[in-house]
Amino acid sequence: MHGKEHTPREIKVGVLGATGTVGQRFIALLSRHPYFIIHALGASQRSAGKKYTQAVNWKQTSPVPAQVRDMVVKECIPEHFVECSVVFSGLDSDVAGEIEEAFRHAELAVFSNAKNYRRDPAVPLVVPLVNSSHFAMIPQQRAQHSPPLKKGFILTNANCSTTGVVVPLAALEKAFGPLESCMITTMQAISGAGYPGVPSLDIIDNVVPYISGEEEKMEWETLKILGGISEGDEGLKSFDMHDKHPLRISASCNRVPVIEGHTECVSIRFARRPPPSPQQVREALTAYTSDAYALGCPSAPRHTVFVHEEVDRPQPRLDRDYQMGAGVSVGRVRQCRVLDIKFVVLANNVAIGAATSSILNAELAVVKGIIS
Amino acid sequence: MHGKEHTPREIKVGVLGATGTVGQRFIALLSRHPYFIIHALGASQRSAGKKYTQAVNWKQTSPVPAQVRDMVVKECIPEHFVECSVVFSGLDSDVAGEIEEAFRHAELAVFSNAKNYRRDPAVPLVVPLVNSSHFAMIPQQRAQHSPPLKKGFILTNANCSTTGVVVPLAALEKAFGPLESCMITTMQAISGAGYPGVPSLDIIDNVVPYISGEEEKMEWETLKILGGISEGDEGLKSFDMHDKHPLRISASCNRVPVIEGHTECVSIRFARRPPPSPQQVREALTAYTSDAYALGCPSAPRHTVFVHEEVDRPQPRLDRDYQMGAGVSVGRVRQCRVLDIKFVVLANNVAIGAATSSILNAELAVVKGIIS
Amino acid sequence: MHGKEHTPREIKVGVLGATGTVGQRFIALLSRHPYFIIHALGASQRSAGKKYTQAVNWKQTSPVPAQVRDMVVKECIPEHFVECSVVFSGLDSDVAGEIEEAFRHAELAVFSNAKNYRRDPAVPLVVPLVNSSHFAMIPQQRAQHSPPLKKGFILTNANCSTTGVVVPLAALEKAFGPLESCMITTMQAISGAGYPGVPSLDIIDNVVPYISGEEEKMEWETLKILGGISEGDEGLKSFDMHDKHPLRISASCNRVPVIEGHTECVSIRFARRPPPSPQQVREALTAYTSDAYALGCPSAPRHTVFVHEEVDRPQPRLDRDYQMGAGVSVGRVRQCRVLDIKFVVLANNVAIGAATSSILNAELAVVKGIIS
Amino acid sequence: MHGKEHTPREIKVGVLGATGTVGQRFIALLSRHPYFIIHALGASQRSAGKKYTQAVNWKQTSPVPAQVRDMVVKECIPEHFVECSVVFSGLDSDVAGEIEEAFRHAELAVFSNAKNYRRDPAVPLVVPLVNSSHFAMIPQQRAQHSPPLKKGFILTNANCSTTGVVVPLAALEKAFGPLESCMITTMQAISGAGYPGVPSLDIIDNVVPYISGEEEKMEWETLKILGGISEGDEGLKSFDMHDKHPLRISASCNRVPVIEGHTECVSIRFARRPPPSPQQVREALTAYTSDAYALGCPSAPRHTVFVHEEVDRPQPRLDRDYQMGAGVSVGRVRQCRVLDIKFVVLANNVAIGAATSSILNAELAVVKGIIS
Repeated sequence: MHGKEHTPREIKVGVLGATGTVGQRFIALLSRHPYFIIHALGASQRSAGKKYTQAVNWKQTSPVPAQVRDMVVKECIPEHFVECSVVFSGLDSDVAGEIEEAFRHAELAVFSNAKNYRRDPAVPLVVPLVNSSHFAMIPQQRAQHSPPLKKGFILTNANCSTTGVVVPLAALEKAFGPLESCMITTMQAISGAGYPGVPSLDIIDNVVPYISGEEEKMEWETLKILGGISEGDEGLKSFDMHDKHPLRISASCNRVPVIEGHTECVSIRFARRPPPSPQQVREALTAYTSDAYALGCPSAPRHTVFVHEEVDRPQPRLDRDYQMGAGVSVGRVRQCRVLDIKFVVLANNVAIGAATSSILNAELAVVKGIIS
Repeated sequence: MHGKEHTPREIKVGVLGATGTVGQRFIALLSRHPYFIIHALGASQRSAGKKYTQAVNWKQTSPVPAQVRDMVVKECIPEHFVECSVVFSGLDSDVAGEIEEAFRHAELAVFSNAKNYRRDPAVPLVVPLVNSSHFAMIPQQRAQHSPPLKKGFILTNANCSTTGVVVPLAALEKAFGPLESCMITTMQAISGAGYPGVPSLDIIDNVVPYISGEEEKMEWETLKILGGISEGDEGLKSFDMHDKHPLRISASCNRVPVIEGHTECVSIRFARRPPPSPQQVREALTAYTSDAYALGCPSAPRHTVFVHEEVDRPQPRLDRDYQMGAGVSVGRVRQCRVLDIKFVVLANNVAIGAATSSILNAELAVVKGIIS
Repeated sequence: MHGKEHTPREIKVGVLGATGTVGQRFIALLSRHPYFIIHALGASQRSAGKKYTQAVNWKQTSPVPAQVRDMVVKECIPEHFVECSVVFSGLDSDVAGEIEEAFRHAELAVFSNAKNYRRDPAVPLVVPLVNSSHFAMIPQQRAQHSPPLKKGFILTNANCSTTGVVVPLAALEKAFGPLESCMITTMQAISGAGYPGVPSLDIIDNVVPYISGEEEKMEWETLKILGGISEGDEGLKSFDMHDKHPLRISASCNRVPVIEGHTECVSIRFARRPPPSPQQVREALTAYTSDAYALGCPSAPRHTVFVHEEVDRPQPRLDRDYQMGAGVSVGRVRQCRVLDIKFVVLANNVAIGAATSSILNAELAVVKGIIS
Repeated sequence: MHGKEHTPREIKVGVLGATGTVGQRFIALLSRHPYFIIHALGASQRSAGKKYTQAVNWKQTSPVPAQVRDMVVKECIPEHFVECSVVFSGLDSDVAGEIEEAFRHAELAVFSNAKNYRRDPAVPLVVPLVNSSHFAMIPQQRAQHSPPLKKGFILTNANCSTTGVVVPLAALEKAFGPLESCMITTMQAISGAGYPGVPSLDIIDNVVPYISGEEEKMEWETLKILGGISEGDEGLKSFDMHDKHPLRISASCNRVPVIEGHTECVSIRFARRPPPSPQQVREALTAYTSDAYALGCPSAPRHTVFVHEEVDRPQPRLDRDYQMGAGVSVGRVRQCRVLDIKFVVLANNVAIGAATSSILNAELAVVKGIIS
């Protein structure tokens, strides 16, 4: 992490879904943030009106931060958040659609972890270590609204498994040109399913080789994130879904008895012939730097991709907290007998895979002047 | 399981490495076998001379079978096993090479779980649900010995991960012709590493994305098993390693916190265009019957491959004991965006992946008249 | 397990809560029962009308038994169960109270796993390996009903943790006279909490030192079970709660990441001075035989209490399935520096701790002629 | 943690057993210490001569600290450590006896985690949050040596389970006078057994109700720590083993599938009648402050004993890292029906239960002027 000279003094932020798993992580991270100040907490009607410590079933390994202990939780309606320049949403997808739209309509900047707007053609799906260029869609999103918005917008981050794999893929496309195909098998942590989430009877001494909707998300979101923005006849922008260089992605998603940290076995084929060597791949991954870091976002990791040399790393328990989980680990870069190159990716699903990405996106929005 | 009318009355068998993990499973299975009778137990010098219950650190979930409780453990030298028509070896690879050779030399039929002779050009590597035709190499193996052997031979079964994947692959090649490529990502149980094996500190709340030598074994053994036997100029036979239809295999092997049952995500490409549909694949897998079952081997499972229809199966904890772990489970058969078809395989690594395969191989040898 | 000559041919039974965790275990056990025949399955309105395989989320390690696969699930109302001589209830306590009462009122014999009637002064709380004498309360229970019942009654079994500890305590009181105090610390399996039950995020790599209501249940139920039946002035019977020899019980209950099998560390003080030696305790535990076994109940274990000699046993994973989980394991019998004797108990919470106990109770009722 | 004004600038320290589990934790903690500077690393001959990163199989969740990465590991002989004012020993007990004696003989101050000298009548067994008064034995220890030592001594900390329970016991004896009896049932983490330690096959989905030698250690060490120092006729001091108020302790030790953090269920009886109430106990525990904190030791926790009010805490996964694991957590303080009061203790076995205690002991030695 590093800061920059010209960072803002203080920016008030709100957290929606503040008592949930992602909401708790938002609060833990924001309580130590250099300029985001937690100003309002939103949750369901059942929690509204209670002090945060009474409303929450706190499951983090650090205590409830002092500044929110006695904060009164509010309902998720825009009136309670008007003073917030940024609203982080950890809402579940069954309520996120309506609430986030209401907040955008009320001219609030919403950074969402929910899946609801990821496929919206006017909403950027931003992995902050990869495609901050997609912020360019925000003016069009505002303009399409009726009446046109001045400050409000919705920006989402990606599914936690997508985030892990898309960072090294972006680094490799940057270095070696377009990819042609990509096979991914995930071993995902239980925290990816929220709380109460996965019943212990289903996962202790077990693997569940299925996560509802996950493979489709990975196969679709990756294309939106790795793709660019095209401009049509009348100046209308659209996400190009990597369509100039069709990229075939096949994902197999599994749940394993790991608390935190998604491990993914990835194999890729480059368009370029001959493909780069494993050593060239390692170097390109190590050399890759995110815009977020270059622009001085305080939550950006120094090593966007950390490449392990040990033969048996990365491992979720040992490596998930490196750089506070804000970067991505890669190991076992080697040749693949079917495609070109294969490797193992580890990403902390609740840090870079969720709350940290939203916060980084908001930091990027600040740096880019989209939020003042 | 099913029996046949004309089975032998009693065949005396020995178990080498009787106190180890695989040896214990041999004993548990053989104690209930219709015609194999445990006659001699071999272990290291440290155990030799002790009663079995005193020599063993028994880790099975059923008690030590009554018939071996007081049996005196012997050293692994052929003299103690001369009355055995079959010798099952659960020896570790660091001692298996020499001991198994000594037993073969002493005219004993050795069914080995160790890796030492799997790559030997005269030793069949037999997954009993797949390539019992490779028994045809035994006469040549005996003939090459000096002096030629009359009864002795070594036959090995495959690595536990190889066994799981090779059964459905064989079924599909039988139905649809040769495969062209195969990507496999495994999630392997800790029991695959023996005892004490994987330290708990390494695997609780963790995934280890590396198992020494495992990927190489899977990529090589699969070719030997799925391949045929060629006959050269002078009538000399050799394993053809699937070389008429080159098959590219890429394996990524992971250890997960599961006690028993290897789960494998498999994606394949057929040579045939267009490839079969998922439904055709399901039907072919279900229809596949092993020689072992057709020939009436009592340990052969009725369903060689059991195809699950539920979206989230097979799972190791729930499905590993189906048919006493003697068959293979397949689920989630569906299209792959990179290759043709993908699916999930579950195989019980200590049953069909180890002891059960050796016993089935010995049953095949009995049926085929190789052992009398 | 053993049978007897004069067992009934066939007795039709129903299962309430047939899709739940306990209900599934009932069905798995009853499908192999020598004379209980599953005749009707009851579940919530949501399941009623569906075939069992469609209604259930089957979580057992054996497949759904053939005889219930296509059985249509019914609502839990007595009309659907009139042909059943026995009704096993695996209902949750939030609905068990009303439904079980309705079934009793309809002259059905209800064997319940729920806690609702355990404290009822007319309902026997029977651990079948301990206090089958409490069946003697049934006539009074029927008589108190208005109008008096001829066949209907409710009989409950105990909490799963209580069951484990009460068996060796009963054996020791039988051999050495009354106990004076008993300290128990439990390490309970997740299956004790049903499904979905304990969230995996709460228990992987963790211990939860609290189970709601559990300590109170253990401290109270043990007294009812170990106590006798007193007869008052007018011939009215009541449970004496061990009040002739006050017994102080202190329980500390913990949840641990174990799938099945409750482990309990127990320390006791006898009234008798000097107390028996550890060896005498071991012998008394081994010698103890249940009425259920003596009377030929087919589900009764041959070894009511199995005493382990190995220093590190019993262990849930290795010992929970011994005798199909129908007995209780005890190990590490040794002196206690504070009380007299301490030892470790293991009981399979879903077998003897739940479904097996209900079935044994029903077998006892058959043998005793309470059910015809 | 807090510092003080008059702390020393820099004190050079050595670590014996630097590649082991405890050694790694020493290094992780010392790398951030305000005045202890890692100067020399000792390990077995096999590691000697290698750079630390090459010698160690690093298993901590933070990377190898920069200052030791390239440090060359030495053999554990005093010559290599002469410049160290403090030597921390994480040696295994099979070698600790001889090596630690050699270091003491060479006038080095040895702070040991091994059990070898804990029962030595001249060696203090110090839990730094409890009995820093036992440092008073050091002059006598030096004097007994031939020739008398000027600087050398050995001081040990306690077994990890003992440490957890002895802190609240000391607090309660301080507030309410002597205890009379204490029953303890532990649920201990796998890291307490070092690396490779507990095989995963032994502990996943399991409890092992036995840890060799552990119960004896807890029952004996607690008496030495809670006892005082008596002075005999000729001014000779001895540890009194709490013999003025005999204290009976009974421990039952279990291994559970938890990575870090020992949970202990404790029940106690006070000599004082009537005993204090649960609320008085809570207050006394909260009020207790260690000498180490009062004297400004930088590694001392602000809350020696943190008392949880939530009904289901402490839990190892959630609470073990509070205050960097340097304090002890207590929860569920309530009445016991057999003794007086019962509660749950959680102590981080690798922090306060091992390395942190040694470092705190060394800080105490600095503050007390025993080390200069």
